[in-house]
This record gives sequence, structure tokens and C-alpha cells, in this order.
Amino acid sequence: MSLRRLLEALSIPILQAPMVGASGVALCAAVGEAGGLGALAAGAMAPEDIGPAVAAVRAASAAPFFVNLLMAPAAAPQPGEVAAALARLTPFYARLGMTTPEAPNRFAPDFEAQLDAVIAARPAGASFTFGVLARERIAELHAAGILVIGTATTVAEALAWAEVGADGLCAQGFEAGGHRGHFLAEAEASLVGTMALVATIRAAVDLPLIAAGGIMDGRSVAAALALGADAVQMGTAFLLADEAVTAAPWRRAVETAGPDTTRLTRAYTGRQARGMETEFMRRLRPEEDEVPAYPVQNRLTQPMRAAASAAGDSDLMSLWAGQGVSLAASGRAGDLMRRWWQEAADASDALARRVRGRNTA
Amino acid sequence: MSLRRLLEALSIPILQAPMVGASGVALCAAVGEAGGLGALAAGAMAPEDIGPAVAAVRAASAAPFFVNLLMAPAAAPQPGEVAAALARLTPFYARLGMTTPEAPNRFAPDFEAQLDAVIAARPAGASFTFGVLARERIAELHAAGILVIGTATTVAEALAWAEVGADGLCAQGFEAGGHRGHFLAEAEASLVGTMALVATIRAAVDLPLIAAGGIMDGRSVAAALALGADAVQMGTAFLLADEAVTAAPWRRAVETAGPDTTRLTRAYTGRQARGMETEFMRRLRPEEDEVPAYPVQNRLTQPMRAAASAAGDSDLMSLWAGQGVSLAASGRAGDLMRRWWQEAADASDALARRVRGRNTA
Repeated sequence: MSLRRLLEALSIPILQAPMVGASGVALCAAVGEAGGLGALAAGAMAPEDIGPAVAAVRAASAAPFFVNLLMAPAAAPQPGEVAAALARLTPFYARLGMTTPEAPNRFAPDFEAQLDAVIAARPAGASFTFGVLARERIAELHAAGILVIGTATTVAEALAWAEVGADGLCAQGFEAGGHRGHFLAEAEASLVGTMALVATIRAAVDLPLIAAGGIMDGRSVAAALALGADAVQMGTAFLLADEAVTAAPWRRAVETAGPDTTRLTRAYTGRQARGMETEFMRRLRPEEDEVPAYPVQNRLTQPMRAAASAAGDSDLMSLWAGQGVSLAASGRAGDLMRRWWQEAADASDALARRVRGRNTA
Repeated sequence: MSLRRLLEALSIPILQAPMVGASGVALCAAVGEAGGLGALAAGAMAPEDIGPAVAAVRAASAAPFFVNLLMAPAAAPQPGEVAAALARLTPFYARLGMTTPEAPNRFAPDFEAQLDAVIAARPAGASFTFGVLARERIAELHAAGILVIGTATTVAEALAWAEVGADGLCAQGFEAGGHRGHFLAEAEASLVGTMALVATIRAAVDLPLIAAGGIMDGRSVAAALALGADAVQMGTAFLLADEAVTAAPWRRAVETAGPDTTRLTRAYTGRQARGMETEFMRRLRPEEDEVPAYPVQNRLTQPMRAAASAAGDSDLMSLWAGQGVSLAASGRAGDLMRRWWQEAADASDALARRVRGRNTA
């Protein structure tokens, strides 16, 4: 089935964004059951865990779903860089009563092995972030019947994915929570608001287009579709879903979030990402350009973030969230989706009345 | 008439953004004649020029229009700061065959005198950027029958304008071209994409809301209305209009602009603004945090930009434009507006078909 057909066949054209540490098997299955398209965030999984996770989603739902992988560059820290980065983190580890961890041998799972595992597991589709696949790898995915969605933060990245034969694009706007997906230009040149990004990619590339970033309710679903997107991808909007595995302190932070509360930071992972502002972000701000590049810093702060989460110390956690976080609602994923889709229908009706009322054509 | 009534009475709910150096009397009048709402960019005008400019628009059209003022803070450069800033600009002035200008006595028109002139001229409305008015000044505007729109880049700024009694809000998203309008938090904390900004302000403030930033065609007009905006404000989309006074090199840059080509910079004016990337922006990037704050740097670079424009040297010009610049189209303003409105109707119809096709409600 083509991606366009798959998206048209959804009873609700909403994709659930893959979110390491927040989405999971239950949310992925629930979104599919409700008529949307779920995603399994496999970026942080060991290759051997991917097959069982895909099987677990299949056991919970017969609906199609995607697996997302992060195309992390090979970690290549400079001599002394890891030691310096760990020294910078020592006060934070100490605050949690921990000794600073040793330098690890490995900073991220092996991407090629993860991809082999995805191909073997044959989900309906796979989406990719932080890079663009080689044409040969896309041919392997297609041979296994797996659709391919590439994440683009600019028109240039959308064209790069179209060039290698992707089936569709996820346009990640500036508003989006979590990691920025840029891979061609530098981070600062890859920040385009969802409104402009969807319009400019739509004008440049004729592929199914999924809008992401700042989409929090039915009005924004309707807006993204009016803009020309074929579907939307929502992440932050699912953080409070019953089926999400959002850690309790992260969930509490989302529940009480005011507007205007997120910022971009490199402090946690060495790659720009959007989250609610924390003490850790503020304290590392003066030197955040000096932390090791992703995935090194990401790996070095992982034990800190895990311990902080367990201790309920949200000041040292990465509270990834998009700019619409104050609009997040709780409930069962399917109920949220049905509410958003009804709101989208209401927004569509209201728009039609306004346009008709004024249009003499 | 209330602002809501005025917006509902427009045959096309499109406001033309005030753009110093690009919009003008003819564009303001043409937008009003076509059933939208024009704006006169009076921010750089001497107080005594405002009344005649308002009269000139009135002579060209009976339609209501707004006047925009920039609430520039009083210039207070540190000792030596102006000399250092001029020294930094010397190579650029030399390249244009100019001697570097002397330090000026005045850096911006007097805002209170400008506001008095607006009150005396009694346009239908006035919009304000870079600050929030005192309640007493709003009372004076209202007593003169002038509606007040405040520019907000965050929910906090929207609430500040609501608190002092503004009639409506212009939500300026991250995508927008030209100066950022922030006035409460620092620039970096005041960057919210249009999609998230309109949704979060809509949820927080019950005032007529005008969406700005990345709105370039009828699809994005429909998207902004679906999101809950009462109208849209478009700037970059009018840069190529026949009636705009966009300087020839700026116009050529817009005509040939690719996507992904704008950046935020403080280099030209000392305040963050979005424009197409130029050599001047690139060369000042390492020290752009050190240039004097607006309006000082703005005034110091004005002769350079004017001379560069006259010489056709766009590398030293400020080519303000929003993130959708590659979608700008040329033609008469009224024709553009009618085309966008027809596109918005088409987008609304397409949205209705998609929502109805799937919605069993």
C-alpha cells in the first residue's frame, strides 16, 4: 500500500510522534486502535530489543504502525572531551548523591544494526530523524514492504529525502518538542516555524506530507490540513495520555506548564532540543556550545536524568515538550483523538461559514 | 465601532503589515480599497509628517486603516559605545565610498510626540510594537475614536496588552519578517511559532486576534482562521505588490529568494529582526551581541543601508522578509488579496471534504 493510501485510510489522520521515554508499546497500539497511526520510538533501543517490541505492538493491535530510528552520527569525542564533560556534570551527580560515572565504551546503539532489526521486523513503516538514508537502504526497506518517512526541518532536507526515494515527509516545525531533526545546515539555520515549513515544503516536493510542531488540538489539526498537510504528527499532545509512559515528574511538569515555558538547549544531549526550562538548562547555558556533540553528551547525562526522575527532581530532568505544552490534556489516547477530530470538524465548519459569508464567488 | 465589528465587516479579513521602507500610502489605500485593512508604517516618521501621511491615505481611499508606531526605548548608549559602533561600520561605509557619519544627536523620533500626532490625525486604529502603552494613553486614543491593537510575541505580552485595555492583539509568530516585537522577556525567550502562538494566546485572552508570521497565501490564511484567529496580517506577501515601495534591490532579492533563506539578526538595528541573509549579517555575526541596542545601531546603519540601496549593493542592505519569502508573488495588491481569498475558500472546501469523508459524527 502506498503511504498516501495508508494515510487516506486512517479514520483520524493523526500520527503519534515517537518520543523516547514517553511513548511506548501501549500508546502506539492505542493510537492505531483509535484509527490513527502509532509509532514505536526505537532510537534508544538495542538492536535485539526492536523485534520483540514490534511483536508486542502487534500482539496489542492489528493496526499498522511505524518504527522510528535516530540516525546518530558515530560518536567521535576529542581526547579529553569526555573527561571534561563528566567533570562539568560532577556537581549535578553529587547533588543526586551519585559518583560521576566512568566514561562509557559506547554512546549510542549501532544504527545499521538497528535498521537491520527494523527490516527483519517488517512494521508497516519506518521513520528516520537526524539524517537521510542511502538509496540502497531504502530499497531494502521497500523490498521488505516497509514505507519510509524522512524527517525534514527545511526544504533542502525535504528535497534530500525525495531524492533518495522516501515515501513521505514529516515536516518538523520550530514549535516541536524534543530533538531538532536537522542534518544539512547548522541548527540555527534549520529553525522554520510549522506554518512556513509546511507551506514551503508543500510548494517544493510532491510527496505525502505530515505536519509536526505546535499541533495540540483539533483547531491546529484543521489548520495543518488546510495548509496542505496530508496528516499531522502530535507528540506533546500525547504526553499526558493514560497509555504514555511519561515519568511522573515529567507528567506533573506538563500538567502544570504555563505558556511561553519551553526553550531550545544543547545542554542535555549535545544536540538542540526543545523542553521546558529547567535549572540544569539555565546553569549550563553559558557553556552549552562546549558540551560534546550528540550522542556523547546524551549518554553522559542519561544516568543523571534517570536518577533525577526516580528522585522526583525535575530540575535535572529533560522535560521535552513543544511550544503548545500548556494546551496538553489528559485522558485515554483514543478519547483525546476523537475529541481533536471532532474539534477539527467544528473548526472546519466555522471556517466554511466565515469564508462563505464573505466570498461572493 | 468595535474592532471585532470592524474585522467582521472586512470583505477579506487580511491586514497589511506595516513595513518601514516597503509599505506606504499607496499600498495602505489599495489594501483598504480591496476590502482588507491597510496600515501606515509611521514608526520612522517625524511627528509632523504623520498627519499629512494620514491625510494622503484618506485622499486615496475612504476605507478605514491603521497607523503603526514603534515604541522604541529612549536611546541611552554608554560612553564610547557609539564611537566603537561607528568604527565597526567604517569598512562598510568605505566600501560604499562614504566617510563614516558623525555620531547623531537623535537616534529615533520622539514616541510621545508621534503618538500625539496619531491621536490628532484620528485614523480608525493604531497598532503598537516593541512595548505596551500606559492605560492613560489608551484612554486618549479611545476618546479620539481610535482602536488599539497591541503586538504580542508571547502569551505574557498578550496578557499585558489585555490588562491595559487594548481592543485586540496581533500575534507575531517566529516566522515573521522584520523586527521581533518582544518587550517583556529577552529575545530568545520570545520566539514562538505562529501555530503555537495563536493557539496559546487564543486560549488565554478573549480579544480579537490577528495572526502574523509565515502567512503567504490562501492556504495559510485558511489555516490561521481555522486556528482561531479573527484575521491575518501579511507583510512579506505584499513586498512584491505593485503599490509597495520596496526598493529595487530588495524587490529583486525577494523575487529570486529560495526557501530556508532568512535568519534572525541584531546586526542592522540592535534588535532581533528577520531578513534574508546578507554579507553584512554574516560578517557581523561574531559580534552582533555587542552592537548598541535599538534604536542606536538602527540609526548608525541607516545611511549605509540607504546608500547601498541606491547603489544596488544588496549585501549591505537589510532585506527584511519572513520565512515564507520564497512564496511571495507580484501583482496589484487587490488582485493578490482576491486570489488569496479564493485560495482560502478552496482550502476550506478541501478541508471540509476531508473532515466529512472521515467523520461519522
